[in-house]
Amino acid sequence: MNPGPSADPAVTDLLGLLAYAELGSFFRLADDAALAPTLRDKGRLASLAAEEERRYERLRERLVERGADPEEAMEPFVAPLDAWHARTEPQSWVESLVKTCVGDGIAGDFYRKVAEFADTGTSALVEGVLAEEGRGTLISGMVRAAVHEDPALAGRLSLWARRLVGEALSQAQQVAAARPRLAALLADGGAGESAVDGAGIGDLASVTRLFGSIADRHAERLEAMGLSD
Amino acid sequence: MNPGPSADPAVTDLLGLLAYAELGSFFRLADDAALAPTLRDKGRLASLAAEEERRYERLRERLVERGADPEEAMEPFVAPLDAWHARTEPQSWVESLVKTCVGDGIAGDFYRKVAEFADTGTSALVEGVLAEEGRGTLISGMVRAAVHEDPALAGRLSLWARRLVGEALSQAQQVAAARPRLAALLADGGAGESAVDGAGIGDLASVTRLFGSIADRHAERLEAMGLSD
Repeated sequence: MNPGPSADPAVTDLLGLLAYAELGSFFRLADDAALAPTLRDKGRLASLAAEEERRYERLRERLVERGADPEEAMEPFVAPLDAWHARTEPQSWVESLVKTCVGDGIAGDFYRKVAEFADTGTSALVEGVLAEEGRGTLISGMVRAAVHEDPALAGRLSLWARRLVGEALSQAQQVAAARPRLAALLADGGAGESAVDGAGIGDLASVTRLFGSIADRHAERLEAMGLSD
Repeated sequence: MNPGPSADPAVTDLLGLLAYAELGSFFRLADDAALAPTLRDKGRLASLAAEEERRYERLRERLVERGADPEEAMEPFVAPLDAWHARTEPQSWVESLVKTCVGDGIAGDFYRKVAEFADTGTSALVEGVLAEEGRGTLISGMVRAAVHEDPALAGRLSLWARRLVGEALSQAQQVAAARPRLAALLADGGAGESAVDGAGIGDLASVTRLFGSIADRHAERLEAMGLSD
């Protein structure tokens, strides 16, 4: 709740990261929707895409309210997130759905992290986002249905999910190295005692722990999709 | 206001047509957003795409309220609308924006037609849609800015806009021939006197008049984009 002197720009970083991530999710879900095999699924996925867009707008507004230039706040995360998308181009509709689940899940972990320590306005926004249930269930249900129809998919999709997380962690490590204040904030929840001069050895260890907890939650999400690690 | 015995399924047709058209606009605007040169424009266009998606949802809900199967109601319009999109693939971002303007404009003409004669619930929906101003202004402003920067674009984009309307009218003629009740409704505003057995010679003349009024409004929209016919 008291983020300390260096945390404020780090919160801006985090909001910028999430805003650009939501914009990216919007584009990915719009593509999923366009490729969906039925008119009903097209509509359902388009609706989820529009929901991502609304999240992006809320994050952007929050940045403006905090006095930040929202596009400047997003800019440092354009290259790593675009790189993640470029390195994990889905080869089929169901791979794309798995990517949406995995990406949403990681974003959710970051949102929860924000909720722990951010200022009141930001926490309210984050709690609103986290309260929106159902989207994950819908998409993981579509994946389960596909695996049920073709059980041979399970192994391939599990490998794919592992690759998605691996590539995400690899991009995240680069972001953590380039934005030490953000890394410190994520690792310590804004306690700030090791955050003042950016990421020392201790911070990198904490970042590793954060990644560990993301990996743990990943196993739950795989299960929801009917996959295993 | 009294649509007569044959008009009810025609209203379902019209709502199905508009719903699928909005879904298509959503996909097109999402593509425009992905291709936008700046982060700010990406966000602006993504927001317009999400707005189209909400219109699609409202139309779909209205179909459900009227007791229709919404996907069945859209189905007859999938092929002609997809054909329009396939035959008018934009070659650049600004061509895509012009396409959005032209498509929106034609959709607006249809919405206005619906408002004239539909049942109360549907009219309320349509008036809500028509009250959402600003989107056209934003996109035509982007086109104007592009033409201002490169005046040589004006002639090429005017030809492009003409082709877009021409292809739309050609698809619309096929739809009118295949859905005589819808054609009669659009032509007569649901008066119904010539609509009972579908489109006779008189109906085709009325459809031609409707197309004429679409073409008239097209000139206004061109002007808003800084183009001429």
